[in-house]
Amino acid sequence: MEINNKYYHSVWGDFKNHSINCIDQRKLPFIFEILELKTMDDLSNAISTMAIRGAPAIGIAAAYGIWLSHLLRDGNKNLIKEDYKKLINLRPTAVNLKRGADFVYSNIKDHITNERVYKCADQFAKQEINACYQIGVHGVELIKNIYKTTNKQVNILTHCNAGWLACGDYGTALAPLFEAQKQGIPIHVWVDETRPLNQGSRLTAWELDNANIPFTIIADNTGALLMMNNKVEIVIVGADRIAKNGDVANKIGTYLKALAAKQHNIPFIVAAPSSTFDFNITDGQQIPIEERRGKEMQSIQVFYDNKLISAELFPVHYTSANYAFDITPHDFVSNYITENGIFDFIDQVNKKI
Amino acid sequence: MEINNKYYHSVWGDFKNHSINCIDQRKLPFIFEILELKTMDDLSNAISTMAIRGAPAIGIAAAYGIWLSHLLRDGNKNLIKEDYKKLINLRPTAVNLKRGADFVYSNIKDHITNERVYKCADQFAKQEINACYQIGVHGVELIKNIYKTTNKQVNILTHCNAGWLACGDYGTALAPLFEAQKQGIPIHVWVDETRPLNQGSRLTAWELDNANIPFTIIADNTGALLMMNNKVEIVIVGADRIAKNGDVANKIGTYLKALAAKQHNIPFIVAAPSSTFDFNITDGQQIPIEERRGKEMQSIQVFYDNKLISAELFPVHYTSANYAFDITPHDFVSNYITENGIFDFIDQVNKKI
Repeated sequence: MEINNKYYHSVWGDFKNHSINCIDQRKLPFIFEILELKTMDDLSNAISTMAIRGAPAIGIAAAYGIWLSHLLRDGNKNLIKEDYKKLINLRPTAVNLKRGADFVYSNIKDHITNERVYKCADQFAKQEINACYQIGVHGVELIKNIYKTTNKQVNILTHCNAGWLACGDYGTALAPLFEAQKQGIPIHVWVDETRPLNQGSRLTAWELDNANIPFTIIADNTGALLMMNNKVEIVIVGADRIAKNGDVANKIGTYLKALAAKQHNIPFIVAAPSSTFDFNITDGQQIPIEERRGKEMQSIQVFYDNKLISAELFPVHYTSANYAFDITPHDFVSNYITENGIFDFIDQVNKKI
Repeated sequence: MEINNKYYHSVWGDFKNHSINCIDQRKLPFIFEILELKTMDDLSNAISTMAIRGAPAIGIAAAYGIWLSHLLRDGNKNLIKEDYKKLINLRPTAVNLKRGADFVYSNIKDHITNERVYKCADQFAKQEINACYQIGVHGVELIKNIYKTTNKQVNILTHCNAGWLACGDYGTALAPLFEAQKQGIPIHVWVDETRPLNQGSRLTAWELDNANIPFTIIADNTGALLMMNNKVEIVIVGADRIAKNGDVANKIGTYLKALAAKQHNIPFIVAAPSSTFDFNITDGQQIPIEERRGKEMQSIQVFYDNKLISAELFPVHYTSANYAFDITPHDFVSNYITENGIFDFIDQVNKKI
C-alpha cells in the first residue's frame, strides 16, 4: 500500500540489515513510524504489544522470526527450538503465528545457509500476501453483485482491522473493498470502533482514508440498529482461526454482529487465507480465547497536546476483563472467501486446501 | 444513595435557594461535584450535555424545570410555554422528559403560587423515586429465583447506567440489584462500558463500587461470548421509551445484547417506571432516535495528570456517526418490571398503568 507516495508492506524482512521491520500499529493514525526489530525480544515485544497485529501479519512476522533466530543463534538448533517455542506461544488464538513459524522452522537443518532460511520466510510472506490479493479478486464479486442489483453505493460493515496492516498487504476482509475501489464500484464502510484497542477507528479508518474510500466510524454498539434500518448490505470480517466445522474465532464483538446480520438477513462473510483454517480443531469451543490485561480496558492511548499519552478511563481499583476474541458458530457464516474462491460451506473450503 | 456518609438524590429541587441541584454525571467517577442550576439555560445545558441523564432523572429535572420557569418568568404563561417547548425538545428519545414537564405544566394557571408549583414538581419526583424503589422490590424476585435454583452467585449483565444516578434514586435496571445486595443474595455484575460516553464504566461501576457489589467492566463487544460460555444468568436493562406493542428504545447496543440473550436462552429484562411507557407510539419504529454529535466518538474525556481532559481518539477529519439509542423488538423481552410488578407481556403492563 502506498503511504505518502511510497509503497509499504506492514511487516517485512531486511536481509542485509539483519532485521525485521514493521509499521508500528500502536501509534497509528497519529504517528507513522517504522520499527526495526533486531533481537528476538524486540520481535516478541512487537507481537505481544500489538505493534504487529492481525492473523496473517503475525504469521509473516513469525516466519521472519525463525530466520532472525537462525541468524542470531548461529544455526544452533537447540536455541532456535527455544525461540520457536516462545514465538508460537506469544498469542494463543491466531493459528497463523504457528503456521508462519512452522513453515520456516521445518526447513531448519544442519548447515543450511541463513540466506536459504531467509528465502523460505520470504516465500511464506509472498504466499500470504498473494493469498490476500486473491481474496480481494474473488471477494469483490460479492460486492459487485449487490451493486448490480441495487445500483446504489454498497454499505459494508466491518469489525476490527482486517486490512493490509493486518496482513502484510491487501488485507482479508478489506481486500475486496480495495479491489472494489479500484474497479470503480461505489462503496461506503461502517467502521466498528473495536474496543478496547480501537483497531477499527485507528487502523481501518486510517487505511480507508488513505485509499479514499468513504467510511463512517461507529461505536461497536451501533451495527444492529443500522441493519434494522436497512443501512448495511453486507458484513465482511477477517478471522484469527477457523475450525474444521467452520466456526470462526475473530476479534471480540464479531459474534454480536453475526447475530444481528442473521436476524436481518444480511450476508455475513468471513475472509481468510488458507493459513487461518485449522483442521486440527474440530469446533470453535476448542479454540483458545486470549484474555489480555484488564489494563487495556482501564487506560487508553489518546492524542493530547500533540503527543500520544496513556490516560485513565476509570479508577485502577475497578475490576475489568478483556477477552480478545469470540467464536461465531458456522451457521452464522454466509460465505467464506479464501485465495481459492468464494465458498458457501466449510466442506467446500476444506476440499480446496 | 449514601456517598461519603451523606444521602444524595441525583437531581433535586431547592425551593429556598431558587435552584435545581444535581450530581454532575459528566465528571464521575473521578470528580464528585454538585451543580447548582439557577437559570433555564443552566438546566438546558445540564440536560443536553448529560450532566443530568437517564430517562427518569431527566423527567424529574424537567418537572422542577417548569417550577424554575414559573419562578423566573413571574408566572407569565406565554414565557413559561416557551420554556416548556424548549425543555421537552432537548432530548428526543426519552419520553420521561415530556412526562415530567407535562405533570407540572398542566397545573400552571393564573395566580398559582410558586410554592404550589414546586410541590407539584416535588410530587412528581417522589412518585418517580418511589416507582424505582418498587421496581427493586418486585425485580429482586427474578434474581432470587435464579439463586434458589443454582445456589451460586448470580451473574447479571447490564448495559449503560440505569442506576440511581439515572433515576433520582434507586434506579430501574439496578434497583433489583441494590435490593438483592440488601437481602444478602450473592450477585456479580458484568458492566458494559457503553461507548461512546462510557456510562457503564464510569457511572454504573461507580454506583456498584460505592454499594460494595462485585462487578467487572467489559467492552460492549463481550456479552455474547460470556453468554455462550454460561457466564450470564440474566440481562437487565432500563429503557428510554417503551411503545404500545412493547418495543423498547434504550441506549445503543441494547438490541445486540437482546439478540445474544435470545440465542442463548437467557432472560432479557426491561425495568422502567410507568412514565417510560408511551401508548401514543404504536411500535418501536416510530420512536425518534437521537443522533448526537460525531465529536462524542472522536474525542474522549479521560483522567490524566490529576485532571479531566478531552483528548483525541482519531483525527478530526474522519467521519463518525453517533446514534444514541436503538430499538429492541418486544419479542426479545422476557419480562417488564414496573412499579406494579413483573409482567410477561406488554398487554399486562398496559392494563396496570
